[in-house]
Amino acid sequence: MLHDPNRVYVFDTTLRDGEQVPGCQLTTPEKIEIARELELLGVDIIEAGFPASSPGDFQSVVEIAKAVSEPTICALTRAHEKDIDAAVEALKYAKRPRIHTGIGSSDMHIKTKFNSTREEILERAVAAVKYAKKSVEDIEFYAEDAGRADVVYLAQMVEAVIAAGATVVNIPDTNGYCLPDQYGNKIKFLKEHVKNIDKAIISVHCHNDLGLATANSIAGLQNGARQIEGTINGIGERAGNTSIEEVVMVLKTHQTLGLYTNINSKMFYELSRMVSTQMRMIVQPNKAIVGANAFAHSSGIHQDGFLKNRENYEIIRPEDVGFPSASIVLTARSGRHALKFHLERLGYNLSKEELADVYAKFLTLADIKLDINDDDLRGLMLAQLVK
Amino acid sequence: MLHDPNRVYVFDTTLRDGEQVPGCQLTTPEKIEIARELELLGVDIIEAGFPASSPGDFQSVVEIAKAVSEPTICALTRAHEKDIDAAVEALKYAKRPRIHTGIGSSDMHIKTKFNSTREEILERAVAAVKYAKKSVEDIEFYAEDAGRADVVYLAQMVEAVIAAGATVVNIPDTNGYCLPDQYGNKIKFLKEHVKNIDKAIISVHCHNDLGLATANSIAGLQNGARQIEGTINGIGERAGNTSIEEVVMVLKTHQTLGLYTNINSKMFYELSRMVSTQMRMIVQPNKAIVGANAFAHSSGIHQDGFLKNRENYEIIRPEDVGFPSASIVLTARSGRHALKFHLERLGYNLSKEELADVYAKFLTLADIKLDINDDDLRGLMLAQLVK
Repeated sequence: MLHDPNRVYVFDTTLRDGEQVPGCQLTTPEKIEIARELELLGVDIIEAGFPASSPGDFQSVVEIAKAVSEPTICALTRAHEKDIDAAVEALKYAKRPRIHTGIGSSDMHIKTKFNSTREEILERAVAAVKYAKKSVEDIEFYAEDAGRADVVYLAQMVEAVIAAGATVVNIPDTNGYCLPDQYGNKIKFLKEHVKNIDKAIISVHCHNDLGLATANSIAGLQNGARQIEGTINGIGERAGNTSIEEVVMVLKTHQTLGLYTNINSKMFYELSRMVSTQMRMIVQPNKAIVGANAFAHSSGIHQDGFLKNRENYEIIRPEDVGFPSASIVLTARSGRHALKFHLERLGYNLSKEELADVYAKFLTLADIKLDINDDDLRGLMLAQLVK
Repeated sequence: MLHDPNRVYVFDTTLRDGEQVPGCQLTTPEKIEIARELELLGVDIIEAGFPASSPGDFQSVVEIAKAVSEPTICALTRAHEKDIDAAVEALKYAKRPRIHTGIGSSDMHIKTKFNSTREEILERAVAAVKYAKKSVEDIEFYAEDAGRADVVYLAQMVEAVIAAGATVVNIPDTNGYCLPDQYGNKIKFLKEHVKNIDKAIISVHCHNDLGLATANSIAGLQNGARQIEGTINGIGERAGNTSIEEVVMVLKTHQTLGLYTNINSKMFYELSRMVSTQMRMIVQPNKAIVGANAFAHSSGIHQDGFLKNRENYEIIRPEDVGFPSASIVLTARSGRHALKFHLERLGYNLSKEELADVYAKFLTLADIKLDINDDDLRGLMLAQLVK
């Protein structure tokens, strides 16, 4: 295979790992609408569903595969022939179909979920890949709970499934357990010890149970992975999946990593709102990149520095993620520079003494009224003028 | 100083860096209520406000210092004598007062915010610490924008302020810029190159602009920092501060790090809800540790494994963070409203028809099992989702 070694593929699972969350279920037309936006965003792979799980999910995969043409369309399966058959059938209209099959790789999963042995699970993994490969060329294998798996066994499994035909090997931290250095070292070990690793792309699929999904994904990329899996707004099982918008903006902000994606980041804000509305999943104001406050500067110290040079307190330009505009909000913690800025915006040009006077009154008002808007500022200036 | 080398101090700034956010302003009685809960939670330091910023904030610091006795009470200042005077005055009732003073350390802040030079800023930093030290023994110094500062200059600054009397040196990633390995290396450099570093505690204060605040804080601790600064729910300027609940649970989950805090993690859930309500800042359902869905298992694939052994899909026990249990309330005599309430608490939002369906199954189960707990409800919902 020929790959640009610095290109990171983005695998979106908003419509599969995101959509399975209680309360987030979508109709097929809603899924198609999101899939079309994901295509415009520039994601490389859309995981459209888990066809064997329900007739509705099956049909959604069919319709998404018809509706979008640029991204690879991926369908999830367990390592069961029945699941794989359903996925193959659901993907029949896909221009670029991918089957995503896999099985547990940690001893805990092998013993207490499958009541099985490492050897037997390895055989089932290889059999699933071989079976899927008969119908579809592009096969991604997931080694579930890889975050807690023994790395030597994991390497055996990865080598075996690549030999069986897997084009992508997904190393999920299914339970959001790993620390970034642990996860990075796991990817590094695979890169160094799996003989045929260059025949496949390593994919990172992280969960946010400890708040580390983005950091773990980046650690994976730093150690050789070239596909990241995530969702818009970080929605997903429990504390969610990696937020695609965070990983993409880390790579853009840290050019020294030398990695890039095909994503048009200017679409993030709008798409975040659309997914939030359709899935009825609120984005908290302090969410990185797409939260309502993500670019709001409120403290006096920050507003002063921001007005002198926005880069003092801004590492991402809001317009780069499609955010309407960076807002300065006036509160009791705002300094006099911010007050001056907003008064001038409203047409009031004050001397230093006048500003000091109005600022004192502003603070008294802000202690009572919390958020100060333009009408409040006009009222303050009127009071000043008639005093 | 005598410190247990494995003890991590928790510095809460919910009432300062959190409270300055637009829409989050609290009255003094509300702040006191939260401060009392933070004391029960076991935080080591409460940053109570920025006294010079407004009369209301000054008064809040006074009242919080009167209301709580166990934690150190800290007040923020710029490197100005007037600010420090206000902080000293506001802290007069504090049993354990701390002044938190500092100045910008990155060349960008030095040049475009202060229009100054490295030499002059270093002098101002030292002068501020010396001035504060005349009135208060415990002085924390912040090197603002340290995340983007030249590390050799930063080391000079840290050495100078420790020599001037600083007991804690805070290395803030003010703009949430750093990658975990960059931030960890910065702390490592200070630990290895600042001659008097053992005379002070290194503190990490990270922001979440790229979704990396928790990972950066952990990287800091792995490299020698022993105080973490953060807020409940990760609220704060822009995309917020480090979530205290995430860092604490990372340390609890990863015992191999050998680090511990004084925090009673069982209080997290309740306190998260209290802060969210008082500050009118929604916690998104997929927020790590405290989100409504943080412990909700939904996918069909996860069903089987979770019911056989919850650890297959659960790295933190919900009860360890005070996630409420329904076992007291739900019996065969409970109505569908109670069922709905508890399902929503666990993150399941059902239509009227779905609820009717689940309620019928619930009654059958409750007739057999008498007390219905959260695991039973999750089992019911899993059965519902895969049917």
